Amino acid sequence: MAKDKKQPRPKAQTPKGFQDYFGADVTARSEMLSQIAAVYHRYGFDALETSAVETVEALGKFLPDVDRPNEGVFAWEEDKDWLALRYDLTAPLARVYAQFRNDLPTPYRRYAMGPVWRNEKPGPGRFRQFYQCDADTVGAPSVAADAEICAMLSDTLEAVGIPRGDYVIRVNNRKVLNGVLEVAGLSGDDKEAERGIVLRAIDKLDRLGPEGVRALLGEGRKDESGDFTKGAALNDAQADVVMGFMDAKRDTGAQTVTRLSELVAGSVIGSDGVAELQTIAGLLDAQGYGPDRIIIDPSVVRGLGYYTGPVYEAELTFEVTDEKGRPRNFGSVAGGGRYDDLVKRFTGQAVPATGVSIGVDRLLAALRAKGRIDQTAVGPVVVTVMDRDRMVDYQSMVADLRNAGIRAEVYLGNPKNFGNQLKYADKRASPVAIIAGGDEFDAGIVQIKDLVLGAEIAKNATLEEWKDRPSQYEVPRDQMVAKVRDILDSQD
Amino acid sequence: MAKDKKQPRPKAQTPKGFQDYFGADVTARSEMLSQIAAVYHRYGFDALETSAVETVEALGKFLPDVDRPNEGVFAWEEDKDWLALRYDLTAPLARVYAQFRNDLPTPYRRYAMGPVWRNEKPGPGRFRQFYQCDADTVGAPSVAADAEICAMLSDTLEAVGIPRGDYVIRVNNRKVLNGVLEVAGLSGDDKEAERGIVLRAIDKLDRLGPEGVRALLGEGRKDESGDFTKGAALNDAQADVVMGFMDAKRDTGAQTVTRLSELVAGSVIGSDGVAELQTIAGLLDAQGYGPDRIIIDPSVVRGLGYYTGPVYEAELTFEVTDEKGRPRNFGSVAGGGRYDDLVKRFTGQAVPATGVSIGVDRLLAALRAKGRIDQTAVGPVVVTVMDRDRMVDYQSMVADLRNAGIRAEVYLGNPKNFGNQLKYADKRASPVAIIAGGDEFDAGIVQIKDLVLGAEIAKNATLEEWKDRPSQYEVPRDQMVAKVRDILDSQD
Repeated sequence: MAKDKKQPRPKAQTPKGFQDYFGADVTARSEMLSQIAAVYHRYGFDALETSAVETVEALGKFLPDVDRPNEGVFAWEEDKDWLALRYDLTAPLARVYAQFRNDLPTPYRRYAMGPVWRNEKPGPGRFRQFYQCDADTVGAPSVAADAEICAMLSDTLEAVGIPRGDYVIRVNNRKVLNGVLEVAGLSGDDKEAERGIVLRAIDKLDRLGPEGVRALLGEGRKDESGDFTKGAALNDAQADVVMGFMDAKRDTGAQTVTRLSELVAGSVIGSDGVAELQTIAGLLDAQGYGPDRIIIDPSVVRGLGYYTGPVYEAELTFEVTDEKGRPRNFGSVAGGGRYDDLVKRFTGQAVPATGVSIGVDRLLAALRAKGRIDQTAVGPVVVTVMDRDRMVDYQSMVADLRNAGIRAEVYLGNPKNFGNQLKYADKRASPVAIIAGGDEFDAGIVQIKDLVLGAEIAKNATLEEWKDRPSQYEVPRDQMVAKVRDILDSQD
Repeated sequence: MAKDKKQPRPKAQTPKGFQDYFGADVTARSEMLSQIAAVYHRYGFDALETSAVETVEALGKFLPDVDRPNEGVFAWEEDKDWLALRYDLTAPLARVYAQFRNDLPTPYRRYAMGPVWRNEKPGPGRFRQFYQCDADTVGAPSVAADAEICAMLSDTLEAVGIPRGDYVIRVNNRKVLNGVLEVAGLSGDDKEAERGIVLRAIDKLDRLGPEGVRALLGEGRKDESGDFTKGAALNDAQADVVMGFMDAKRDTGAQTVTRLSELVAGSVIGSDGVAELQTIAGLLDAQGYGPDRIIIDPSVVRGLGYYTGPVYEAELTFEVTDEKGRPRNFGSVAGGGRYDDLVKRFTGQAVPATGVSIGVDRLLAALRAKGRIDQTAVGPVVVTVMDRDRMVDYQSMVADLRNAGIRAEVYLGNPKNFGNQLKYADKRASPVAIIAGGDEFDAGIVQIKDLVLGAEIAKNATLEEWKDRPSQYEVPRDQMVAKVRDILDSQD
């Protein structure tokens, strides 16, 4: 102990960019994940839980959304190997499928839920550990697998409490974009640089709007800070084709598909992509997932650079008010698509795969915004301690309550100051307090205080009708559990 | 893509000492943790989820069970700070309580469940990531808090499926040991070295047996490899007192307490510890937790060096056969005790705390050994694909099944080889396959194959009574769901 004095005390702090979750925040998330898992399970998906740690070699040298090599992960050296925390749930799936492909069924439908880690500069609302919840089908070349995931995503949103009409799942296809690029004369090996600029430009549609993207397709764009981004130098006709792709959504799916067909006329891969969209729409329609839930929408461009076929995104369409009090659409809560190259890194064989990732924290925030999560977590019944020599009696009261399935506890702090015990019950959001001292024990009774009603009465103390309402009841000890149950029922 | 060719392919391997969990292993654990959380919640404990990453400063420089500094954790440097993966759930609790003590209720009852990481040499059955499930009460000086955790542990074991009689929770007290050391003349500042040797010796009681411990209390002990461990050099009278402590258990709790009182006669701290044990036993008795569930047992020595008051351990008493086919007691699945110094590291103030940690994997293994976990995970109904142009129809079949709450999927691999589809259904442990080709569609019917009964018939093919039993049924399309439900019910 003498040594301790020489060292400064450690700081009690969550590391920067990390967060602690308390009580109802933990249980609300875990309930939501259970509801999601139940839907995934019904669709035939199996759970997979990989470890948090992977070899850097298996993770690969890049994040899907980041160009810079070797950034974005927490990594450390061990002997000659480097280990790292997983940055998503897809890279571990690719590793697992490559490693166990002879034992796993093919197609392999799996779901996974858990934290992932990003070594990014922490900022407001940007955390370095957060939950993901993914479902993927590996080894199914048919776009029926993509359609299935879209249907499952729709069921999932409704299962957790997003009503139909408050969300829409939009579907696009990378192959159609490839067709558009071909029609625009950008398909040659010598056009790789231009294609890269075009892909990055359309990925910024949400942020820059059509004019900004158009500028990047042409000579380039100067942003607000004055920085200039060089464009792809397309001529007007070329740029029109690309812009037309993002703007191809029409009133009905059939009209949208017709418009896309026109845009990619002459391109084999483009027509292929349009046919895939048509197949997906047909499969979903037949199962009752109409355009009120899932629609073909070529303006979904997020991730088109990463995926190789169908791309899908779930957007919540109801309005919330932002931090400045302005109304805005809630926006995206899940996205995914088809990626056929991940497993190939390990085995050399391309394996088709498609999957979705749900932004767990955003979906939780949406449910909170919709009032779907009970924020008023009910605390335990608190058995207060008037006489510390009667602890045996208080413990037997709490045991009776717990055995009846009622959340309850004895106050275990210093019982001297009774006011502190009631403050504690308040901090715990306790619905009921039990009080018994020498007189009560002698008479074989307990006092039961309805804390919710008590607070109500205190709030309305000036109103005549509230004045004489009792919020405390005296009952025989053997009727305590029944009376507490009555009060809890009346509070619901 | 050209670059890929230059690099060797990454190895698809779980990092050494880590493990992947599939399907039923994931869901069985998550169900067990839910059952545990429900009990903890009923006892008034609140969930806490801290991040996997802590500053090394906050974690402290040592593991509770390890003497070597700075070993045992996965750590990396970031700017000037060191970050590390948590090695247990207690150190983060101490950090959280110190950080948020003004906002948290006191006493603070919290539970936490999640993975922890140990940077140890991996070995057979030794993993570097595993689950812990803890419940602790911070800020409650009364041993009523310890008694409560013992009662909760008992309820928890029964809630997950360990029947009463198949477990026992043993309670001991570090203060009694301190009293014993005092009586043995080992309480002075100049006896620190001897006390250390004695503590380490009794911690090895399970492994070395009484003779081994006795040798370490005396001159020392040569192990099987010939290595000599120096002993505490106690004389016979001193050693007798220490050995008497571990051997103080009597037929009844009262007798054990009497024996302990004799052993520590004259020591204030020892008598204090005996009184605490007596209080705990009294509180538990009054709540109906008799010695068939929770007993005072001074032979519980694990962790006595770490804890400062009551210590408790849950042991499963039923026999299992070990890898060599010999029967042995299943052993410990949970343990804990009172530790009053953890928060002090941060704040300078000692805060009383007591808590338990459940060995999640061992408890799961116990439930498997008792047949309490259904190992035969039921796979999905598989709708096979005879005609790939009818995918819309197959999808609508599977949608009908799912909407009826039946786990189901369409075969999404290459449908050419029908045998592969049945092999797939087999690998998925599917209970039922749906088959429909052109003839069936024309007639408005489907074929439904009971795969469980089919396997049974195949196994008993030589027996007359099985010969003519059908395992495949032809039903109108609109009776498909009802027939599948019948078959599933008959399989239960």
